[in-house]
Amino acid sequence: MDFAHDDTTLEITARVRAFLDEHVYPAEAVHTRQVADTPDGWAFRPVVRELQAAARDQGLWNLFLPPTAPSGREGGGLTNLQYAPVAELTGRSPGLAPRAFNCAAPDTGNMEVIDHFGTPEQKERWLRPLLAGEIRSSFCMTEPDVASSDATQIATRIRRVGDAYEITGRKWFATGGMNPDARILVVMGKTDPDAPRHRQQSMILVPRDTPGVRVVRGLSVLGYDDRDHGGHAEIEFDGAVVPVSHLLAGEGEGFAVAQARLGPGRIHHCMRALGTAERAMDLVRDRVRERVAFGGPLAGQGVIREWLATSRIEIEALRLLVLKTAWLMDTVGNRVAMTEIQAIKIAVPRAVQQILDRAMQWFGGAGLSQDTPLAAMFAGARSLRLADGPDEVHLASLGRAELRR
Amino acid sequence: MDFAHDDTTLEITARVRAFLDEHVYPAEAVHTRQVADTPDGWAFRPVVRELQAAARDQGLWNLFLPPTAPSGREGGGLTNLQYAPVAELTGRSPGLAPRAFNCAAPDTGNMEVIDHFGTPEQKERWLRPLLAGEIRSSFCMTEPDVASSDATQIATRIRRVGDAYEITGRKWFATGGMNPDARILVVMGKTDPDAPRHRQQSMILVPRDTPGVRVVRGLSVLGYDDRDHGGHAEIEFDGAVVPVSHLLAGEGEGFAVAQARLGPGRIHHCMRALGTAERAMDLVRDRVRERVAFGGPLAGQGVIREWLATSRIEIEALRLLVLKTAWLMDTVGNRVAMTEIQAIKIAVPRAVQQILDRAMQWFGGAGLSQDTPLAAMFAGARSLRLADGPDEVHLASLGRAELRR
Amino acid sequence: MDFAHDDTTLEITARVRAFLDEHVYPAEAVHTRQVADTPDGWAFRPVVRELQAAARDQGLWNLFLPPTAPSGREGGGLTNLQYAPVAELTGRSPGLAPRAFNCAAPDTGNMEVIDHFGTPEQKERWLRPLLAGEIRSSFCMTEPDVASSDATQIATRIRRVGDAYEITGRKWFATGGMNPDARILVVMGKTDPDAPRHRQQSMILVPRDTPGVRVVRGLSVLGYDDRDHGGHAEIEFDGAVVPVSHLLAGEGEGFAVAQARLGPGRIHHCMRALGTAERAMDLVRDRVRERVAFGGPLAGQGVIREWLATSRIEIEALRLLVLKTAWLMDTVGNRVAMTEIQAIKIAVPRAVQQILDRAMQWFGGAGLSQDTPLAAMFAGARSLRLADGPDEVHLASLGRAELRR
Amino acid sequence: MDFAHDDTTLEITARVRAFLDEHVYPAEAVHTRQVADTPDGWAFRPVVRELQAAARDQGLWNLFLPPTAPSGREGGGLTNLQYAPVAELTGRSPGLAPRAFNCAAPDTGNMEVIDHFGTPEQKERWLRPLLAGEIRSSFCMTEPDVASSDATQIATRIRRVGDAYEITGRKWFATGGMNPDARILVVMGKTDPDAPRHRQQSMILVPRDTPGVRVVRGLSVLGYDDRDHGGHAEIEFDGAVVPVSHLLAGEGEGFAVAQARLGPGRIHHCMRALGTAERAMDLVRDRVRERVAFGGPLAGQGVIREWLATSRIEIEALRLLVLKTAWLMDTVGNRVAMTEIQAIKIAVPRAVQQILDRAMQWFGGAGLSQDTPLAAMFAGARSLRLADGPDEVHLASLGRAELRR
Repeated sequence: MDFAHDDTTLEITARVRAFLDEHVYPAEAVHTRQVADTPDGWAFRPVVRELQAAARDQGLWNLFLPPTAPSGREGGGLTNLQYAPVAELTGRSPGLAPRAFNCAAPDTGNMEVIDHFGTPEQKERWLRPLLAGEIRSSFCMTEPDVASSDATQIATRIRRVGDAYEITGRKWFATGGMNPDARILVVMGKTDPDAPRHRQQSMILVPRDTPGVRVVRGLSVLGYDDRDHGGHAEIEFDGAVVPVSHLLAGEGEGFAVAQARLGPGRIHHCMRALGTAERAMDLVRDRVRERVAFGGPLAGQGVIREWLATSRIEIEALRLLVLKTAWLMDTVGNRVAMTEIQAIKIAVPRAVQQILDRAMQWFGGAGLSQDTPLAAMFAGARSLRLADGPDEVHLASLGRAELRR
Repeated sequence: MDFAHDDTTLEITARVRAFLDEHVYPAEAVHTRQVADTPDGWAFRPVVRELQAAARDQGLWNLFLPPTAPSGREGGGLTNLQYAPVAELTGRSPGLAPRAFNCAAPDTGNMEVIDHFGTPEQKERWLRPLLAGEIRSSFCMTEPDVASSDATQIATRIRRVGDAYEITGRKWFATGGMNPDARILVVMGKTDPDAPRHRQQSMILVPRDTPGVRVVRGLSVLGYDDRDHGGHAEIEFDGAVVPVSHLLAGEGEGFAVAQARLGPGRIHHCMRALGTAERAMDLVRDRVRERVAFGGPLAGQGVIREWLATSRIEIEALRLLVLKTAWLMDTVGNRVAMTEIQAIKIAVPRAVQQILDRAMQWFGGAGLSQDTPLAAMFAGARSLRLADGPDEVHLASLGRAELRR
Repeated sequence: MDFAHDDTTLEITARVRAFLDEHVYPAEAVHTRQVADTPDGWAFRPVVRELQAAARDQGLWNLFLPPTAPSGREGGGLTNLQYAPVAELTGRSPGLAPRAFNCAAPDTGNMEVIDHFGTPEQKERWLRPLLAGEIRSSFCMTEPDVASSDATQIATRIRRVGDAYEITGRKWFATGGMNPDARILVVMGKTDPDAPRHRQQSMILVPRDTPGVRVVRGLSVLGYDDRDHGGHAEIEFDGAVVPVSHLLAGEGEGFAVAQARLGPGRIHHCMRALGTAERAMDLVRDRVRERVAFGGPLAGQGVIREWLATSRIEIEALRLLVLKTAWLMDTVGNRVAMTEIQAIKIAVPRAVQQILDRAMQWFGGAGLSQDTPLAAMFAGARSLRLADGPDEVHLASLGRAELRR
Repeated sequence: MDFAHDDTTLEITARVRAFLDEHVYPAEAVHTRQVADTPDGWAFRPVVRELQAAARDQGLWNLFLPPTAPSGREGGGLTNLQYAPVAELTGRSPGLAPRAFNCAAPDTGNMEVIDHFGTPEQKERWLRPLLAGEIRSSFCMTEPDVASSDATQIATRIRRVGDAYEITGRKWFATGGMNPDARILVVMGKTDPDAPRHRQQSMILVPRDTPGVRVVRGLSVLGYDDRDHGGHAEIEFDGAVVPVSHLLAGEGEGFAVAQARLGPGRIHHCMRALGTAERAMDLVRDRVRERVAFGGPLAGQGVIREWLATSRIEIEALRLLVLKTAWLMDTVGNRVAMTEIQAIKIAVPRAVQQILDRAMQWFGGAGLSQDTPLAAMFAGARSLRLADGPDEVHLASLGRAELRR
């Protein structure tokens, strides 16, 4: 047992940290201004494009791609354990850094599954431009009318009609889906409702401009429409037809593809969430050292010290749990690591939400407003408690596993 | 000791409840649409005006005005204890009901203080149209650069210059201040920085169109800009000049005026917050009875029953505490009730935030989005923990009182 | 709605408070010494007898008996709402005051049910000496082998054999049952396992010295054997035979009798628990004002102020909920008040346990030891979460009621 | 970074686990009986002696002694990181296993400091028989009259008088001190009240039978007097005189010696606490699978699954934090690991207390009684929150460190 990061990790995190200092933090105010100036747009703003160019120049690009990925050579070749601290750092500027490095959800997960399960044609047409940052993508899983954490309830139908599939259904919370650059939609639906429980679903690639695809509206998350990175779309598929070659993996493989996406995605989400918590700690530290009330700096108050201490403990303990999960994924695989993957999915967003809630408090009204990144980070942590199924589903599953021990 | 509401309360709440059923709930979707259709506006939308007309017709107007108010005859003549359940009911549709009844903050507090402390001229010019719902108002207390829960830190200056006062400073979180109909601003500033601690401040009435008044921008609260009711403004006063007759009460009376505003305001805020919690309970009840997952309705899950039970207990206990506080204000006055006023200010928003947080969870993504009122209610409860000073200030004050017992 | 206590309540609580100051608090150290000197005894120690004599002299005796009780004339004739604050005061010295006033569980509940359901003979033989404090009693409900909060699972059999009933089964946590003065046991068992769910059980009076009754051992509660007031007994009934005249109410009435016992008992338990919390607040206040650490009195620390404040809020809100429950019982009866009775049963012990947990913390090691009453109070609050069925059962029941609203 | 235990750890934990199964768990009921049969004794009961003989035979003895310890050859030669999982396993039977392996506090800490700081004579006289399990020891640090987590407040005086030291003062919570076999007391006192803050104190070895040493009484912890392993003593030193050769390290070294004791002690305490939590999980699992209520096994209830899940997550995260702390102590030393040492001291007992609190709940009354080990484990976890200073002191210190980052 060894708790020291290896040299590769130390080297890459040092470079990422330097990039944040030099490029990303200074760009935050610029980005806010560009978003305010283009209230009707849903695509990346110019400063994000500039950051991407700079990051790509420095080789800080697609770092999320693991060495076992067929296309790993185009990414960082980092293991999950090595990439995790990189993800945490990008969480410190969650609106910019993941995009600057082409490491933002849902593109990462989409790239991974096309890389693993895609045909050469699919890779050439969609993976290549995604890896190059030329286009974006969206993932269409959740449905408004059913509890879609229960995959058997998925109502979207994918019907074979001759040489094509016809897709009919309604999806929502398709993150990034309002972005006109999201040229490709990865859609989960049922090809065979009579198959066994986890063989009913398939995953299919649907170009955004396919007739029958209608982007209905953007959904807000605690008041945020997240238009700076494509929002969260409701999308209607009304008999959209794509060639059979657009199927990802085989018929009935949809559930397996979705599961494969989950493990790395949760590591990324959780580490980024811990990064937001660390950024919040930094902001609070600066605030309470400077802010004076009732005769002294806030930093002199016992309740602030106690909060800093308990937040620190939670961050440290949970980070170790995420890192161990990453290590398990690297060494024994996602399936064996399922318990830990569920555990971090439940625990990290809850803890980070609480840390951010209290952090906002030390800032007064500014903490809730656009003048600090805290409120948007809070909304992000809150939404993680529902992403890929609500906590409650995972708690029940983990509890059942515990009973079987 | 008697826990039954009196007949006046039973009668008025029955009428308010009927009005909600008949007019307000059906208007919610209309209002959402009108707001979506006018993304650039900050004033009340037409449906609010229609609700106001209907409410006024039925005598459900200005119910917040207590019988001891000089202008009580124009209101409901209800005691704080009688009005409290009315406020709770309006909280069930927090974006519409308080405005429909002309019982929304900050107008209520502003009307109260002009009624109590204003000159006949001030009342004729500002109170009359406010009571009539012809204009709105804003309250300019909090400042961006200081911890303004510590009144001695207020930096805005009100300087006597001949027959006029000149106001210079910067305020923010002036709720409703983006609304062009907010014709009058109630501004707190310092007239004498050398006076004793709580005699330095004065309160002054500043018409919105006074030269030197600049509405800078709207601030968001957890992503909500609240443009449907005038938002939360940052306002700069750059040598704005008003006649001396615009002073509210005397020089040095600002702190006392602010305190007088607090008691009733907290009752209203807390009861409305409990109303949002009750609405959330109703929504969750309907949801979990209908929604099916993993083979059965959500209502069959133990964790949901446990949540409903603990939420019910908290609501019941805290409602009693608020009602007792209202009773104390009616019988022994705001000053004696200060401990209870602080207690409810701390406890109710915290509890309601937690209830709403969990309520959103049962709705999945919809809970966070514009498709339920839960997320906006959550943002409201969260912001109450900072309104009139953060919880921490009140906890420290209450703790000191406890040590003195 | 009126939150003021009536004159009867004010008068009786003033007298009880004076009695505590004059007699009870000074007796605490004496009692501790007498218990330490008689490690093998389970009966009341002499100082308790002396307090009883003094209380009886002052008419502070059997105050728990309501005016509607047939024998109310021998008690205080107080309503539940009037008695509740008396119960709270006795909780301030939980090891002495309830016994001093002959108002201690389980005798109170046993007296109530004999009073309501007993025959003249039963009253003469058992109620009279109980009211006089000449004997004690125990209540035999819980069983070691089944989840006895589910009354249908009760395994103890009460079989009619000619003119007698034969009782066979095993009970435990029969509070007071180790006290040799507990001359009468109130035993719940099944007379007809084939009857409808809540008509299977009967309640019967079993004299302690009945052949076949064996007091097996005392059970500890978080390390406390509570031998000063008769402990918590495991009792075996091995074919114990009593005349049919010992049945309390009729066959099949056992569940109804048990339910009748619950309402007032929970008011008493909850108010006493709040009394322990208030005593703890007093002790902490004194402690932190005097105790110096790291350069100043503990009272100067923000975390202590915050704890005092949050504890105060919880006590105030929950007390109102208990008082409202008492008022409901007085005005509409136990059945209608069932939701509130469950609510306080869940909420008060949880909150008081937390308050006491933190109170112990401010005392360091002393807080956990016999040198303060805090640890024993903590054990008492903790055990309330299991008495009459664990919280979880009541939460589920309350949650179901909430779903039916 | 590598989360796998090394072979040494896997081998030793397998042996310890086998020993628990074969010897320790079966001895638990025997021990309970022997304690009940000898209510007046404070020394180890015979079954503990038998377990010690068996453990020593198998080389499972003094495993806590690190390889860097001068006497490491007599122990297991395990690093802190290797020993930590052993300590966790001993926590599964906290009343027996630590003693069976001669790895129980406070002997472990006392052996460590004599080993590091003692003279050859001190080692021969006290360390040798302690390592052999022939005698026990106690640590006299905490004082009843001062906040002794603030070392400057220690009031016990150690005065040089010719060739001797005279000790005067009062200590309490000297764990194990009631055991007549605790032949040696390690006592902290002030040799020079005028020296710098952390140079005022010295540590001295005082034989139990020294004239002037009076063991006053045993203190209880949540009702437990812990007489099976020597209780928690109050000890008066009334001019007790020992030769100067009994000083441990030099004058003024007392604080440094105490600090050296802390690091390993906290690892042990925290890992044992996690072991109690794991045992509780096992007990609950068995209970809820078997226990039937309201028509089904408890295991079918959602709230139990949710509890098992959240408990599992907390245990996993905190264990990693403790293991990392152990690794830091091994690699960079106690001083650098101070933040982590404080963090685990705060977080682990809190979490374990909550886990045990809920575990008791699933057992009903049995959970609080002597019929399960849960209540005693709970008292142990609760007392850890005060041992070596209350949480609050450590939170404040950690918070200050966080502000300095």
